[in-house]
Amino acid sequence: MAEHALGIDFGTNTVRALVVDCETGEELGTAVHPYEHGEDGILLDPADPNLARQHPRDYITSLEAVVTAVMKGAAGAGVSADTVVGIGVDTTGSTPIPVDKQGEPLAFKDEFKDNLNAMAWLWKDHTGHEEAARITELGREKGLYLGRFGGTFSSEWFWSKAWHCLNADRKVFDAAHSWVECADFVPAWLAGEPDPAVLRRCVCAAGHKAMYAPDWGGLPSEEFLGELAPELAALRGRLYDIAYTSDIGAGALSEENAKRLGLGIGTPIAGGAFDAHTGAVGAGVRPGRLVKVIGTSTCDMTVQPSGDEIPEIEGLCGIVDGSILPEHYGFEAGQSAVGDTFNWFVRFSGKTHEELTDGAGKLGVGETGLLALDWNNGNRTVLVDPNLSGLVMGLTLHTKPEEVYRALIEGTAFGARVIVERLVEGGVPVDEIVCCGGIAEKNAVLMQIYADVLKRPMKISRSAQTCALGSALFGAVVAGVYSDTESAQAKMTGLKDIVYEPDEARAKAFDELYGLYRQLHDSFGLAAEHDMSRVMKDLIAIRVRSAKR
Amino acid sequence: MAEHALGIDFGTNTVRALVVDCETGEELGTAVHPYEHGEDGILLDPADPNLARQHPRDYITSLEAVVTAVMKGAAGAGVSADTVVGIGVDTTGSTPIPVDKQGEPLAFKDEFKDNLNAMAWLWKDHTGHEEAARITELGREKGLYLGRFGGTFSSEWFWSKAWHCLNADRKVFDAAHSWVECADFVPAWLAGEPDPAVLRRCVCAAGHKAMYAPDWGGLPSEEFLGELAPELAALRGRLYDIAYTSDIGAGALSEENAKRLGLGIGTPIAGGAFDAHTGAVGAGVRPGRLVKVIGTSTCDMTVQPSGDEIPEIEGLCGIVDGSILPEHYGFEAGQSAVGDTFNWFVRFSGKTHEELTDGAGKLGVGETGLLALDWNNGNRTVLVDPNLSGLVMGLTLHTKPEEVYRALIEGTAFGARVIVERLVEGGVPVDEIVCCGGIAEKNAVLMQIYADVLKRPMKISRSAQTCALGSALFGAVVAGVYSDTESAQAKMTGLKDIVYEPDEARAKAFDELYGLYRQLHDSFGLAAEHDMSRVMKDLIAIRVRSAKR
Repeated sequence: MAEHALGIDFGTNTVRALVVDCETGEELGTAVHPYEHGEDGILLDPADPNLARQHPRDYITSLEAVVTAVMKGAAGAGVSADTVVGIGVDTTGSTPIPVDKQGEPLAFKDEFKDNLNAMAWLWKDHTGHEEAARITELGREKGLYLGRFGGTFSSEWFWSKAWHCLNADRKVFDAAHSWVECADFVPAWLAGEPDPAVLRRCVCAAGHKAMYAPDWGGLPSEEFLGELAPELAALRGRLYDIAYTSDIGAGALSEENAKRLGLGIGTPIAGGAFDAHTGAVGAGVRPGRLVKVIGTSTCDMTVQPSGDEIPEIEGLCGIVDGSILPEHYGFEAGQSAVGDTFNWFVRFSGKTHEELTDGAGKLGVGETGLLALDWNNGNRTVLVDPNLSGLVMGLTLHTKPEEVYRALIEGTAFGARVIVERLVEGGVPVDEIVCCGGIAEKNAVLMQIYADVLKRPMKISRSAQTCALGSALFGAVVAGVYSDTESAQAKMTGLKDIVYEPDEARAKAFDELYGLYRQLHDSFGLAAEHDMSRVMKDLIAIRVRSAKR
Repeated sequence: MAEHALGIDFGTNTVRALVVDCETGEELGTAVHPYEHGEDGILLDPADPNLARQHPRDYITSLEAVVTAVMKGAAGAGVSADTVVGIGVDTTGSTPIPVDKQGEPLAFKDEFKDNLNAMAWLWKDHTGHEEAARITELGREKGLYLGRFGGTFSSEWFWSKAWHCLNADRKVFDAAHSWVECADFVPAWLAGEPDPAVLRRCVCAAGHKAMYAPDWGGLPSEEFLGELAPELAALRGRLYDIAYTSDIGAGALSEENAKRLGLGIGTPIAGGAFDAHTGAVGAGVRPGRLVKVIGTSTCDMTVQPSGDEIPEIEGLCGIVDGSILPEHYGFEAGQSAVGDTFNWFVRFSGKTHEELTDGAGKLGVGETGLLALDWNNGNRTVLVDPNLSGLVMGLTLHTKPEEVYRALIEGTAFGARVIVERLVEGGVPVDEIVCCGGIAEKNAVLMQIYADVLKRPMKISRSAQTCALGSALFGAVVAGVYSDTESAQAKMTGLKDIVYEPDEARAKAFDELYGLYRQLHDSFGLAAEHDMSRVMKDLIAIRVRSAKR
């Protein structure tokens, strides 16, 4: 009998389910479902643009809807409760949920049902930015924990959020026995074992977002956390000592949930993971292969076999053992705004992506006379500095919108090249680049520019849904279809036929523009080394002060 | 009987005539007339964007039309052939016309009637850019002639054009006995004495565009010109040894022209001048008063009493004795693109000036988080460098068109402040600023920003047509109504009641932004001093090469 695996991908706005053939990775059915609450699934506070929450109930109700739908749709392809041998789950993160002693989200209680602080704190919630700055300050002061995160703790991450809850809503903080990442909550809930004292936490959330690493004793020490707030030190004791890779099962599907979802009782459930990481797995990440998820932002991921010592590469967002593939270091880098910048410029110029892309595609390298820094939302890698901004230079009285659009694309390509060069300089081989995400699938002009700028063939993942595919793949592994993740990848993942090959002449021409880009990059981006390093920061400080006036 | 003066202002696209009362400067009538040939009066070559010519016949036919019209219109105010006691003329420049031995433009001959090289070479013709570069090179090599022009000879100026004609069209060059600036041609034609050997050349064209100065013996030496081309050395002998200020009459209206124009035979004609210079005179320029003509570009002018030695101020476009006011040094500076940049952004953004100005006016200082360099058409003063480009930094995912528009306005204000500071540092007092031109009249948001950035009251010239008024004023002087130009200014020019006063808090906030602007200005603009100085130039070189591919 055929064996199928189910991957469930909880995105920012919708949840997606995918059923695949465990033998071939063939996609037999897919379904998407929105979240019930909020705007596009996000609970907002008009008074605070930093706030972004989700209702944890939505994870459960949308899961039921999407699984029911995908099973129904795939029935014709021979998929049934009997054939689905494993389930994998990925979610956004860090998206922690305050829970009680039994693991029930506080948001499910009458007392807190309308309290935004009792909801899931979505990855892009920035309410904890002051707390993040203080954590960074203490980490730098002590020389602790930040080496693998580019030296800066983000407001998007676990401790910033838990601590901000303490400062902003003591009642919720005190009622929370523990906090559970969405990526850990869903598998535990499926297994009917949500008790926070026993549920398995995934290493990608722990390692990338909560400063967990076995070699320094798990989570940051009570002493360190106690200097931030005694209550955080106390919380540490109610969290976890060990985090797991996704090939370690999170449990077996409970009878109640099996009935609710129309799946087999006891179906193995993989450990949860972040969407970007399962996306890399679904795109076949392996040593020497860099996976670029190109969407509103980019996430760049690769792996290296685990060794004695975790390497440190300046400016990388995170290097975590096992976070992407078991028994491999996961390397994560990224660009804060890519598609978001193009979307901004579409709004700004009043032109469509199609018009702008067509025009941009007709221009030669250097023809625009423009150069852009891709920092409209700061720089994630390698500068790790949100206090940077976008820049366009070379403007004349004849500059056209499609020329600026092309310069913006080129700017993101140059930013992508900086990341690859930093990895290679740090001893992480990049022999091959595989792209996935909406932009990689759709924008041939951009992909060709990337190939020419990076001087490497740009390959595309076969699946358009690598996140869900990666989750399904872990489902197949915990089901025992494969003995390890790499064997599953070899069978279940692949590439499209199309490859964007670099053109030698264009690549050479881009080399020269890239040299100018690096000059701007280093002059504006590197603190204290160049005389321009304060310009952008001062400008932003002026804007912030101006807004407060 | 009332005494009236007629000012005739030959602009780039139209000619304007103004009749004023010599006693009060009151404007009694005005008329505008287009040129017959070309697009908006300009003869273009689709194959060469650098080319811009005008048909010299248009100066004569449009002059007749506009004078007839203004006299007719002003008749009701008591203006007649008998009351008009003097005529003044201003034109664009450097706009030289190749003429034969009798002073007839070659374009009037059958042989050359369709030859663009036989026409007037309009100020903005850049076909001589390679010749300009060579002149600059030789001037620098020899340490000659360039000190008063910011160290660079422009492709817009006289010698670049005459030499380019030699290189591009030997037949026209050889047929030209001499070359006469439009500003000298029209008064001589009115007087019926166009013989190039005797007609009076104005010092503003000679001094600012042909490197004429009495202290180095008039025009550049035969030796210097001979190193460029022997034919230029020969041409020098057919040009002039002395140039005159505008209060020295160019002659008296010929009988034929008096009939044609409906004016009195023998009416005194003032020496010609450039439009910007008579504009300054019409705005009451005097020592300590800076006149800013704010239009598509700006022209900044002031004067100081003539002394023993002509001062040199680095980066000023020109310092010429008598070029604006007789017996005063004329100082000229400017910004290559101001209104042109706003017009560009209107096209770029698809929004109207009104929408953008309204939005920009609602924003506080620094609120945009943006900073712009006002170099979309290079920098005229103080960097004297066409190889610079526009830059906008501080862009985010939320930046709106009206914010960029405001940043562009602020950028031009910062550029204006650099000019004023350079004048003051060079020992030229600026006690008062008077603005004129379309933008100064219409754009209150811009004028307030200028007042706040420059930390000085911005006053507005009473007349909306200061160029024609300045010409009329010289007409009154050569008619003997006044003994000198200053006396005429005291009576005939004035200011509007409205004054834009600087606000202390905003001025202080702008000081900080200006500091950042200066950092960018110096880093990108000053050669060899900073590590960014090649970035813009290299980018432009890449664009130029890319266009040739």
